[in-house]
Amino acid sequence: MAENFSYNTLYQFTLNTFKAIGCSEKEALTATEALISADLRGIDSHGIARLTGYVRLWEAGRINTSPDIKKVHETPSTAVVDGDAGLGLVVAPFAMQIAIDKAKQCGTGWVSVRNSNHFGIAGYHAMKALKEDMIGIAMTNASALVAPTFSNEKMLGTNPIAVAIPAGNQPPFIADFATTTAANGKLELLQRKSENTPTGWVQDADGNETTDANILKKGGSLLPLGSDREHSSHKGYALGSIVDIFSAVLSGASYGPWAPPFPAYIALPENMPGKGLGHFFGAMRIDAFRTSDDFKSHMDNWISRFRNARPSEGNDKVLIPGDPERENETERRLNGIPLYPSVINELNELSMKLNIPALVIMQ
Amino acid sequence: MAENFSYNTLYQFTLNTFKAIGCSEKEALTATEALISADLRGIDSHGIARLTGYVRLWEAGRINTSPDIKKVHETPSTAVVDGDAGLGLVVAPFAMQIAIDKAKQCGTGWVSVRNSNHFGIAGYHAMKALKEDMIGIAMTNASALVAPTFSNEKMLGTNPIAVAIPAGNQPPFIADFATTTAANGKLELLQRKSENTPTGWVQDADGNETTDANILKKGGSLLPLGSDREHSSHKGYALGSIVDIFSAVLSGASYGPWAPPFPAYIALPENMPGKGLGHFFGAMRIDAFRTSDDFKSHMDNWISRFRNARPSEGNDKVLIPGDPERENETERRLNGIPLYPSVINELNELSMKLNIPALVIMQ
Repeated sequence: MAENFSYNTLYQFTLNTFKAIGCSEKEALTATEALISADLRGIDSHGIARLTGYVRLWEAGRINTSPDIKKVHETPSTAVVDGDAGLGLVVAPFAMQIAIDKAKQCGTGWVSVRNSNHFGIAGYHAMKALKEDMIGIAMTNASALVAPTFSNEKMLGTNPIAVAIPAGNQPPFIADFATTTAANGKLELLQRKSENTPTGWVQDADGNETTDANILKKGGSLLPLGSDREHSSHKGYALGSIVDIFSAVLSGASYGPWAPPFPAYIALPENMPGKGLGHFFGAMRIDAFRTSDDFKSHMDNWISRFRNARPSEGNDKVLIPGDPERENETERRLNGIPLYPSVINELNELSMKLNIPALVIMQ
Repeated sequence: MAENFSYNTLYQFTLNTFKAIGCSEKEALTATEALISADLRGIDSHGIARLTGYVRLWEAGRINTSPDIKKVHETPSTAVVDGDAGLGLVVAPFAMQIAIDKAKQCGTGWVSVRNSNHFGIAGYHAMKALKEDMIGIAMTNASALVAPTFSNEKMLGTNPIAVAIPAGNQPPFIADFATTTAANGKLELLQRKSENTPTGWVQDADGNETTDANILKKGGSLLPLGSDREHSSHKGYALGSIVDIFSAVLSGASYGPWAPPFPAYIALPENMPGKGLGHFFGAMRIDAFRTSDDFKSHMDNWISRFRNARPSEGNDKVLIPGDPERENETERRLNGIPLYPSVINELNELSMKLNIPALVIMQ
């Protein structure tokens, strides 16, 4: 089964990889920290397991490792950034910093990004606002895996939304979720174990109910949050659409079914209406609304009240968004990060190809 | 069964009612247009059917019909508004206008509101941005009917989110939805017909599955969008929480289980941590990101591509958020707005109490 690696081991391996494909030291550090934050927080599908995929995109000429990332339009509270086909892991921190800087000046900052690539986990970018006493927001479109309500055509990505909200004595509130019932990473986990999905996660090529975790390879699609019309899948479809429009239509990225795919072996869609993937970032200064002390003491009250909500039968306690990921981080910093043999093999092949040191398992 | 009334009839009746309880002509007009927009758009639970409820809140001294609504804090792109316990139907347009004015100045505007009351449908307020070539956002907290994942305690309101996005030749994209699997209005409809709910809409007092549409009166609760943990109810819980925090913790309104109830016969919660209900509004100028022409032609492309997504078996077509409500509006402007006998009776009792003309059924 899985073997554990220390954070530092994965960090160094990832850093070496990004430098080997042409990133500057500074950009390699930025990309590594963003990518590996997923492994720390337990979102294994979005961390080092994707590193080989990023390299394949670079090999295919779809990622530019020395991009000229720049603002192409702005107002006091907004900007559009062109990522010049750079790693989303580098483009996103650049754009989020602009949102934060604008919030310092005029209360809030909002940045829409085009011509980017996969940016790792949304939560990492939203959390950048926390240390500035700001609320952080991050979202991204992604290649189409999700069918709208009433459709069997893949039109939207899993299009995640992250919102990070500072508190005082309590840890921050950090929501970070795909706008689907199940993220694609959960399917991959079931595929690895040869298990079925619950009903309501996916549909087959005709739009019928199925529990086949491999159905996406057979023309099936993920379902929007809500699963079916009776359980309000039109709301998940609307949320995913809003993410797509804010990230890609506002910025000039490619949207909907034209969003560029992550797997490099899939051809780019024809007639793409914009450039690359799109993201959207926001930062809102707390004291643009009320004093930071007032806000934080009420957030502490909010969090402790919800944490103490009465658990229903069979449940221990009510969680606050961000609790599970924080527990993962504490545990994994101590005991290491588990990687599946297939991931380890891929990374060791990568190390040979790029002529960098192989991974070393924790003793 | 239901009888039809013209828009003008309901408008005049509502206007008379708001004037009779002390609203100025101007504020009565504002409140009426906001309230009746729900009936036009087919969201019957939030329109004139609630008018008697607003009057009861006024009788209970919880609504101030001559409020001094004012900005209490601001930055170039943000403000906090104190609604002075006014009708949310009046406070919300005041606050949304500030968001729009700030967007004109610096690209975007964001307003959090405290000390308000129920504001009708969120979509109405978000749509105010459309004619300014802006994206509009509106949300509100509400009295607690929803249990977080793993809980059987009512902690959140149905906390709706609305996002209105302008297009060119296509009608605008207008999402407006409760962050629950089913809005409370859908339960009321089933209660009236003595029908059960589907599974996944509500739970009983212990947190177990039930299809009893009356379960909220027996200690049960609504479920967050996603229904259960396996179908990602933690995402609906997170969304409802974000609405609560943006609307009430940012502004100084009362949040979570302390949000003031709409029914006047329910006592206010003890130890309320803030003032009244909270709302949150946003306006983003399209040309703060790209030219309005570019954006609108891509929105037209987005909308027509999604409208033409392949329908799954048994479905005619894929809808764009806002389509059903727009169809309702067209039909109801022509044929009138149906009201149930119980609502007609309540309104006629109201007309006697307030000494205003009774409703007249369409011929």
